[in-house]
Amino acid sequence: MSAGTEWLVDAEGCSSELIRDSELLRILCEEIIAKLDLRVVGEPTWHRFPTPGGITGLYLLSESHLTFHTFPETGVATFNLYCCRPRPPYAWEERLRDLLGASKVVVRTVDRGTEIVHRDLPETSERTSSDSVTSEITSMREVSGL
Amino acid sequence: MSAGTEWLVDAEGCSSELIRDSELLRILCEEIIAKLDLRVVGEPTWHRFPTPGGITGLYLLSESHLTFHTFPETGVATFNLYCCRPRPPYAWEERLRDLLGASKVVVRTVDRGTEIVHRDLPETSERTSSDSVTSEITSMREVSGL
Repeated sequence: MSAGTEWLVDAEGCSSELIRDSELLRILCEEIIAKLDLRVVGEPTWHRFPTPGGITGLYLLSESHLTFHTFPETGVATFNLYCCRPRPPYAWEERLRDLLGASKVVVRTVDRGTEIVHRDLPETSERTSSDSVTSEITSMREVSGL
Repeated sequence: MSAGTEWLVDAEGCSSELIRDSELLRILCEEIIAKLDLRVVGEPTWHRFPTPGGITGLYLLSESHLTFHTFPETGVATFNLYCCRPRPPYAWEERLRDLLGASKVVVRTVDRGTEIVHRDLPETSERTSSDSVTSEITSMREVSGL
């Protein structure tokens, strides 16, 4: 049963200053929301952690959720965008480079729901016949690079 | 650069009544939080959508976040648990069967951060030399079934 698509976006090499800048992160989230025509429900929840000052933000969307976490101590910022209806692509690499100074961005796309799609690659594992399975993501295909 | 672990948990065949029961879902989330010794920051954000009455909940954690979405129209419930520090396992399959009536549960584990681990399986794809890559999850190994 399909239950939407989730983008897991991990950026490293970000400027520590930029990823503790809540106003900049707010602009970025609002840009994502506007570009993808997402609808925010209620007020987003934000929290700034003590030094080194990482920030977490959670947006409840009609389409599911947008969350992010920043780690100024390592220059990492991670985003989840979960949409239960199709959305156009967003220029994650370009925008996280431009706005946060990221040197490397990995975008992974996950089909949510239990009907897991093994895309493009031949099967490398056998599905058990059990109704209940625990899966571990073990392989991925990198489909583009800047 | 590692940035924690995320569990993507998708349950289907759930009772439509049970997954629109906000009190039951609250008990489940509080159990997950207690069992895994997670710390909630501030108030969780919950929303009940119009008929058929799906519910979304977002918890901001010291360890990152716990979110869920339920879809009574299809009997699906999805959970994300993102932890930036190691946590013990949680009995997702057993508890979602017992509490929500799920007939099938898929648990996927994702290493967050840009140093993607290709666990257990031999490499099936080559990393590009680019600093910025777009990846798509294409294969997974199912490691256990009930």
